[in-house]
Amino acid sequence: MTSAGKTVHDLKETDRIAQLLADAARDTILPFFRKSGLASDNKLAGGFDPVTEADRAAERAMRDILARECPDDAILGEEYGTSSGTSGLTWVLDPIDGTRGFISGTPTWGVLIACSDENGPFYGLIDQPYIGERFTGTGGVAQMTGPQGSASLRTLAPRDLSQAIVFTTFPEVGTEDDGAAFRAVAGQARLARYGMDCYAYALLAAGQIDLVIEAGLAPYDIQAPVALITAAGGMVTDWQGGPAHNGGRALAAANHQIHAEALAILKEALS
Amino acid sequence: MTSAGKTVHDLKETDRIAQLLADAARDTILPFFRKSGLASDNKLAGGFDPVTEADRAAERAMRDILARECPDDAILGEEYGTSSGTSGLTWVLDPIDGTRGFISGTPTWGVLIACSDENGPFYGLIDQPYIGERFTGTGGVAQMTGPQGSASLRTLAPRDLSQAIVFTTFPEVGTEDDGAAFRAVAGQARLARYGMDCYAYALLAAGQIDLVIEAGLAPYDIQAPVALITAAGGMVTDWQGGPAHNGGRALAAANHQIHAEALAILKEALS
Repeated sequence: MTSAGKTVHDLKETDRIAQLLADAARDTILPFFRKSGLASDNKLAGGFDPVTEADRAAERAMRDILARECPDDAILGEEYGTSSGTSGLTWVLDPIDGTRGFISGTPTWGVLIACSDENGPFYGLIDQPYIGERFTGTGGVAQMTGPQGSASLRTLAPRDLSQAIVFTTFPEVGTEDDGAAFRAVAGQARLARYGMDCYAYALLAAGQIDLVIEAGLAPYDIQAPVALITAAGGMVTDWQGGPAHNGGRALAAANHQIHAEALAILKEALS
Repeated sequence: MTSAGKTVHDLKETDRIAQLLADAARDTILPFFRKSGLASDNKLAGGFDPVTEADRAAERAMRDILARECPDDAILGEEYGTSSGTSGLTWVLDPIDGTRGFISGTPTWGVLIACSDENGPFYGLIDQPYIGERFTGTGGVAQMTGPQGSASLRTLAPRDLSQAIVFTTFPEVGTEDDGAAFRAVAGQARLARYGMDCYAYALLAAGQIDLVIEAGLAPYDIQAPVALITAAGGMVTDWQGGPAHNGGRALAAANHQIHAEALAILKEALS
């Protein structure tokens, strides 16, 4: 259905399917978490990119559900690549974002599920199965369920960068230049923290932190965060202020003001 | 009670009291976690060391219990300092270890409770109230309860440093020299991760990671991890191989072999 050139989606149906996917991924992955003897191999020669059986099995479980529930939709998955569709919708799946955290036993990895159209992701879900937390956002509404119950999500109101909390996954953000640009922002912030994987984006959507700055991302790493954070009142762009959903560098911010402040520093550092 | 010069403690009674303390701390702290408008001030001028009302209230709650249950024991607490005792036992309390994580919303902070005699800590407890995980260790037995139930804890068996996972809280470990020494070890490991606060020690006790290396610690930061990790089969020393329970630099290891390998690199880097 389109209205004045803008596609109108059935957000309730999208959410229903996404919850099914997240439930299946959770049930598939959890038995593998913190179990010794977990097989992991290196996808990238020379790099460290562990892939577990859990990762693959969870994506297969989600693809099975999509084949049954919405066979006309396309799929982009971390493990099994692209399956084409005819509906104009694409499900973007990262069964275990944060595999380094996963193999270390830290509950900061998550299942990332997004649904996108030609303009990018309009639905995003981040699930942390071990803690039992699920964050969803679409159509200007974001919410979470967790150990303390359910809550609406709203990003932080503007505050000065000197008061802000900024997260990234690794101290070694992307390339040397990327890292220097990150540090230019982090050095002016109140606090920089590391090691949270996709959980950092959930914390931003939940109004806990101000900025997440990353580089070297794949589309499936960032599409769910883009939709979730946008729905919670924040914004996510690349380091030039353009769309972030194709991957690469991402600047996720709680509000326009802190986004503009961080973006100016990143641009200056990279120029 | 002493036997051949070695004090024999009532470990069951120690655990009973520690569990009471952890329950009280959890109930006191959780209502503050992820709540906006949380007051935090800087204890150290020029540094960033937030202290919350939760931190203080939890230590008061624990001290009230100790006054009732074992008034003859001494107390060393992060917030309210030292209270002397006559029993020879000291309860060492850090109500919120990882306050930076706490104010960022990450569930990696913890309540640290240790019980020590003249030789150091013989009982250690790490509690993560939001996730609902509690790790305890004493007398050669370590265990946890969490979202997936209860389990015995055992540290990892020896493996080569090139296969090992090493954690620290900040990329900026202690002084410049401390940081260089840390990086000398981390650079030879399979994976280095950051940002886990005291949760890293729990992961080491739980057989998930091989090493935790930190500097600039206070006694209340490290005494519970020392007892927990020792009970789970690992070891914790300073960076010279001496006792770590007085604070400063700590090298926590899953086993003697990886401890020796890391210690040699730290000593070499500092020499």
